[in-house]
Amino acid sequence: MTQNELKDCHKLIKSHVHRTPVLTSRLLNEISGATLFFKCENFQRMGAFKMRGATCAISRLSKNQKSKGVVTHSSGNFAQALSLAAKRLGVKAYIVMPSTAPQVKKDAVKGYGGIIIECPPTLEDREKTAIQVQEEKGATFLHPSNNLDVILGQGTAALELLEDHADLDYIITPVGGGGLIAGTALAAHFYSNHCKVIGGEPFEVDDAYRSLQSGKIESNTTTNTIADGLKTQLGDINFPIIQNYVSEIIRVEEDEIISSMRLIWERMKIIIEPSCAVPFAALLREKDKFKNKKVGIILSGGNVDLKNLPF
Amino acid sequence: MTQNELKDCHKLIKSHVHRTPVLTSRLLNEISGATLFFKCENFQRMGAFKMRGATCAISRLSKNQKSKGVVTHSSGNFAQALSLAAKRLGVKAYIVMPSTAPQVKKDAVKGYGGIIIECPPTLEDREKTAIQVQEEKGATFLHPSNNLDVILGQGTAALELLEDHADLDYIITPVGGGGLIAGTALAAHFYSNHCKVIGGEPFEVDDAYRSLQSGKIESNTTTNTIADGLKTQLGDINFPIIQNYVSEIIRVEEDEIISSMRLIWERMKIIIEPSCAVPFAALLREKDKFKNKKVGIILSGGNVDLKNLPF
Repeated sequence: MTQNELKDCHKLIKSHVHRTPVLTSRLLNEISGATLFFKCENFQRMGAFKMRGATCAISRLSKNQKSKGVVTHSSGNFAQALSLAAKRLGVKAYIVMPSTAPQVKKDAVKGYGGIIIECPPTLEDREKTAIQVQEEKGATFLHPSNNLDVILGQGTAALELLEDHADLDYIITPVGGGGLIAGTALAAHFYSNHCKVIGGEPFEVDDAYRSLQSGKIESNTTTNTIADGLKTQLGDINFPIIQNYVSEIIRVEEDEIISSMRLIWERMKIIIEPSCAVPFAALLREKDKFKNKKVGIILSGGNVDLKNLPF
Repeated sequence: MTQNELKDCHKLIKSHVHRTPVLTSRLLNEISGATLFFKCENFQRMGAFKMRGATCAISRLSKNQKSKGVVTHSSGNFAQALSLAAKRLGVKAYIVMPSTAPQVKKDAVKGYGGIIIECPPTLEDREKTAIQVQEEKGATFLHPSNNLDVILGQGTAALELLEDHADLDYIITPVGGGGLIAGTALAAHFYSNHCKVIGGEPFEVDDAYRSLQSGKIESNTTTNTIADGLKTQLGDINFPIIQNYVSEIIRVEEDEIISSMRLIWERMKIIIEPSCAVPFAALLREKDKFKNKKVGIILSGGNVDLKNLPF
């Protein structure tokens, strides 16, 4: 991979995604002791950074591949992102979803033009069904996080953040499947002098933390976290990037996630989803490390069920 | 009053208030059929436009007046705004509040450095207590909405909006005590070619609507609205300005306020208080009028109790 590849991806997706604003907050600076720059991907199209990776991955397919469509298995933000990105690019998106997925998630995918293909609610069935779609329709499988084009697309958020604020000491992102943090780490590696990339991860699903310790991809045995976007594990494409370019992973407790989410809602007046509060929680947990530093925080998404808030 | 007076006020307060961003939303444009420009005073210091008027009114006092402090009676956003503005300007702020006011509101005022003076919970007691403070301390009384300097300060939000988007056809604001809409109407009168100013008001507290009809200041007999910032009535200073420069007032039902608030939360991922949703509700209620027009909407504030949401 070369430095230019990330810039090329940015050019490719620019007209399809928002250049999201970078917000600051005097109050949260005071509380944290650091100078914070929040990259607001909660304001991104369909409400999350995943729109970047989905758009990038589809855009880089060949004409022939595009004509046959794309397929993924996800019931979260990537399903919506792939549906919307595909619609904008005139490509069919097949979304394999467990039949048990909440109706609101199915409706969101349909609303963005995705074609839902239901399957039984096991990982095995999901993968089997996705393979079937690839075989029957000739569609290209795009993994939500373990795909280099997706990773590069997600990295464009940090690229924009570093364009706006070149002198950041740190960027913190949440860690779920690893796509966002891997892309962010590449962006910081190529486009900053000294900016370190740190991951925030719930103790409840600390597979990435343990993977970095053991040197191999670990799984989660429990998934009991409010940060429902972070339950997935790393993959063989993003893990080496994370090993090479991520400084460390800070783990946080559930109550720290909730109080950080609330602080951002109340003080910044913006809506973020629980997963999105994890980096700020990580920063507050290790305040001393970040004292008087310039810290970029990727606010990853704002899709939250208003009827089911943790406060 | 001259055109320059508003600009002078803006210069005076500029370093003490945020120049709030103007957000747009493709989705809300689609839903409304208009092109919308949201002036985000929910991102203003202390979370509401009231910071502008409070700062302006204190700044324009004489040195002698400043040395003796200011006093107001309010338990809402103006109490917090006056406290914070006074603190920044090195002035004492006495806030007369009913003893029954929620602790969270008292704490907010104290947090911003305001000096709370409690009184029994009637309007008569409030006014009597405020007069006492004026006499004992020599403090200057500043009314939350019926004060020309406050009105000019509130008008600076629309001034900034028109600086950014000179060609608006309409600006819609909520109508409570009348300070914001009067200031907005002055800004549009002085600094736009043809921009009309419209008020949004709940049917439940439609005193301003009825005042424009009858030609005299009307009161509310009921105050049964979720838009708790809009229960107050117009005053003799802002009413003539509203009569001269406001085109009309559109009334909305409670369920329209709630669904508009929810739309803005879900689609724009920003937190607004119920009063703040009233202008957008007014626009949706009379869609035809605004079809294909450029409409500025003042999002007045974002101070909301997360434990007591209407959805």
